[in-house]
Amino acid sequence: MSEPAKRMAAGDKGMPEMGRSLLDGVSLPAAAIFEAPLAHNLAWMQRFAEAHGAHLAPHGKTTMTPALFRRQLEAGAWGITLATAPQCRAAFAGGVQRLLLANQLIGEPNMAIVAELIEAGTEFYCVVDGADNVAALGHYFGARGQTLNVLIELGVTGGRSGCRDADQVEALVAAIGEQPALALVGIEGYEGMIAGGDEVAAVRAYGERLVDTVKSLRASGVLEREAPIVTASGSKWFDLIAEAFDRSELREHYTPVLRPGCYVVHDHRLYAGAMADVKARHPQLEGELKPALEVFAHVQSLPEPGLAIVALGKRDIGHEPDLPLALRLYPLASRPSAAETPRDVGDWRTTHIMDQHVFLTIPRDAEVAVGDVIAFGTSHPCLTFDKWRRLCLVDATLTVRETLATQF
Amino acid sequence: MSEPAKRMAAGDKGMPEMGRSLLDGVSLPAAAIFEAPLAHNLAWMQRFAEAHGAHLAPHGKTTMTPALFRRQLEAGAWGITLATAPQCRAAFAGGVQRLLLANQLIGEPNMAIVAELIEAGTEFYCVVDGADNVAALGHYFGARGQTLNVLIELGVTGGRSGCRDADQVEALVAAIGEQPALALVGIEGYEGMIAGGDEVAAVRAYGERLVDTVKSLRASGVLEREAPIVTASGSKWFDLIAEAFDRSELREHYTPVLRPGCYVVHDHRLYAGAMADVKARHPQLEGELKPALEVFAHVQSLPEPGLAIVALGKRDIGHEPDLPLALRLYPLASRPSAAETPRDVGDWRTTHIMDQHVFLTIPRDAEVAVGDVIAFGTSHPCLTFDKWRRLCLVDATLTVRETLATQF
Repeated sequence: MSEPAKRMAAGDKGMPEMGRSLLDGVSLPAAAIFEAPLAHNLAWMQRFAEAHGAHLAPHGKTTMTPALFRRQLEAGAWGITLATAPQCRAAFAGGVQRLLLANQLIGEPNMAIVAELIEAGTEFYCVVDGADNVAALGHYFGARGQTLNVLIELGVTGGRSGCRDADQVEALVAAIGEQPALALVGIEGYEGMIAGGDEVAAVRAYGERLVDTVKSLRASGVLEREAPIVTASGSKWFDLIAEAFDRSELREHYTPVLRPGCYVVHDHRLYAGAMADVKARHPQLEGELKPALEVFAHVQSLPEPGLAIVALGKRDIGHEPDLPLALRLYPLASRPSAAETPRDVGDWRTTHIMDQHVFLTIPRDAEVAVGDVIAFGTSHPCLTFDKWRRLCLVDATLTVRETLATQF
Repeated sequence: MSEPAKRMAAGDKGMPEMGRSLLDGVSLPAAAIFEAPLAHNLAWMQRFAEAHGAHLAPHGKTTMTPALFRRQLEAGAWGITLATAPQCRAAFAGGVQRLLLANQLIGEPNMAIVAELIEAGTEFYCVVDGADNVAALGHYFGARGQTLNVLIELGVTGGRSGCRDADQVEALVAAIGEQPALALVGIEGYEGMIAGGDEVAAVRAYGERLVDTVKSLRASGVLEREAPIVTASGSKWFDLIAEAFDRSELREHYTPVLRPGCYVVHDHRLYAGAMADVKARHPQLEGELKPALEVFAHVQSLPEPGLAIVALGKRDIGHEPDLPLALRLYPLASRPSAAETPRDVGDWRTTHIMDQHVFLTIPRDAEVAVGDVIAFGTSHPCLTFDKWRRLCLVDATLTVRETLATQF
């Protein structure tokens, strides 16, 4: 590689120099996390969990950003939840010592990653929902003289993975009992698959079922942990799961763990709506989560009245369940002096998104120029994080304070 | 970072050791490119372009995999097309010297990247469609004593960017003429935005319009290149654009350039259908593109009869316009000895996809076990590539021959 090529090779998209402004010092599009709402959310959810006597093991798959995992742990999180073995490895490399894999651990190469993590001294948990997997794990870790901590996953009919009923749980307990290398230490569930009908009642009932199951297993003496784990909760119904777990018996004799992920940067619509529902259910609740993640992009072309093409696409921002939401316009190109007084463009509508372009329907007489910068929000932050190898942590003046590397 | 953490930090998901089998030697899910159809596609499209007297500048945004750019250049490609300035930088770092940015170049930090590329000796082209951008580029590159090659973009009404009519082209030519730092060297378009009505006729007419426009500009003496560039073509209508460009006048006095991207790995539905259309339009055409990209994943859970949860999600595979397509099952867990005789499961249907899970509707009596491996294909390969930092180049026996790093 030539010298200039080498020098230029280091640059990921959206990778800025510290201290530069997102508006004119960074190659756009770029993803930005605002310091103040991030810090607020970290503290808010930790306080919420503690107020209900629960631990927090935030789902790390949302961000896969070790610098955020460390902030979550510094705020008081008990551990980090992950979805895959390579995610667990990345979290460990980023400094996380207590890992909860909220899926079955499948395939010897993935088991080998976990064996290395256990060997390296992590406190590791994964879930099981079938006898075949229990046997495979028992043989693999037994052959290595290691003990693997497992939680039985409870699912719902028509949902994702997990035991559907008490008979399946009983059979699984027996299967685990046949594997000396496996330590059954609690119960895991995910209420986010519940949909349709009276969802609030169904989530509450599911929370009760988790608690009843872990109590029944504890009473039967099959749990190999003094304070067995009971864990559930995504970012939508965390209040209902927290309530189900909030009882003195659990505080004293169990380890209740909540696992929301999206809360850390929240969003501008889907979880904003979920937060409004939480507030409606708990009018006395103090404060609320705030959106902290936005993607900044240039107006790329203004080919027809009423249409702006923005240099931003599926490669840069999540577009489900809602297309990217235009928030503010910084009239950089047309009026440089006005760059710090953005305009609300919440009524501009994204009508189409391609790999590298967004189509924005704007007023035919809109004051806008090619080169202006638009900040976009999203519904559901997970699928924005994985579009970036580095995100910009910015302050309220849009100055880059830090770049945060992702590990997808 | 501790020593074990350091040792484990290097592993991206899907990163295998050479010579291991995708079925049992690689952490799944993993994305695989098959050597034979890849080599076939590289040669097939190069031959197709040459047969029509056109150059090939494959769109690199599809793969953003420099090792594939190099193979495209080795097969005879004239250059590589990119969508953003950071993509151009990554392609240059990967060894590409001739870069075609098929978008307006917006924002000073992006202009700075291109100024460095020009300084480093690349042959660089970008497109323009508005006077504001022309002025901004003229000032920026003029101040640096550099010349920027620009192509005027022709668009279609209701489409994406690009001049809608001849008056806009004329005004843009005048604006470019006022900027000594800009060299107008040709015409660019993208027929992929044409939809509805008689699309074939509309694409043919658009191809004619591109040719007529570049000829008219050449005749008027405003083009600063001896063999002016005329370029278009995605992966759907490449035959029609090639036909429009295929005339002796263009072969002799112009530089016609086709820019398909997806052809390099093709796909299992969207472009498979487009290929069938190409073949129907040209029954004499020899051979065809073949699908080369698949994603391999484990059966994760079998919680109910008729439902398989697969350890594969939006983080791993494109899901638009069609959900991932189950192709073959390798019954690894249930019958290890049968691992090399996969079963066709093309009738199993993906019904839902989440960030890390696919829901597969399967026969209630299906022979399948947790740990079995399923190979999936996609519609549209672009949004699978960007889910991976490394892909596995495999031979027909599923042995990993090389890992290919992406640069998204």
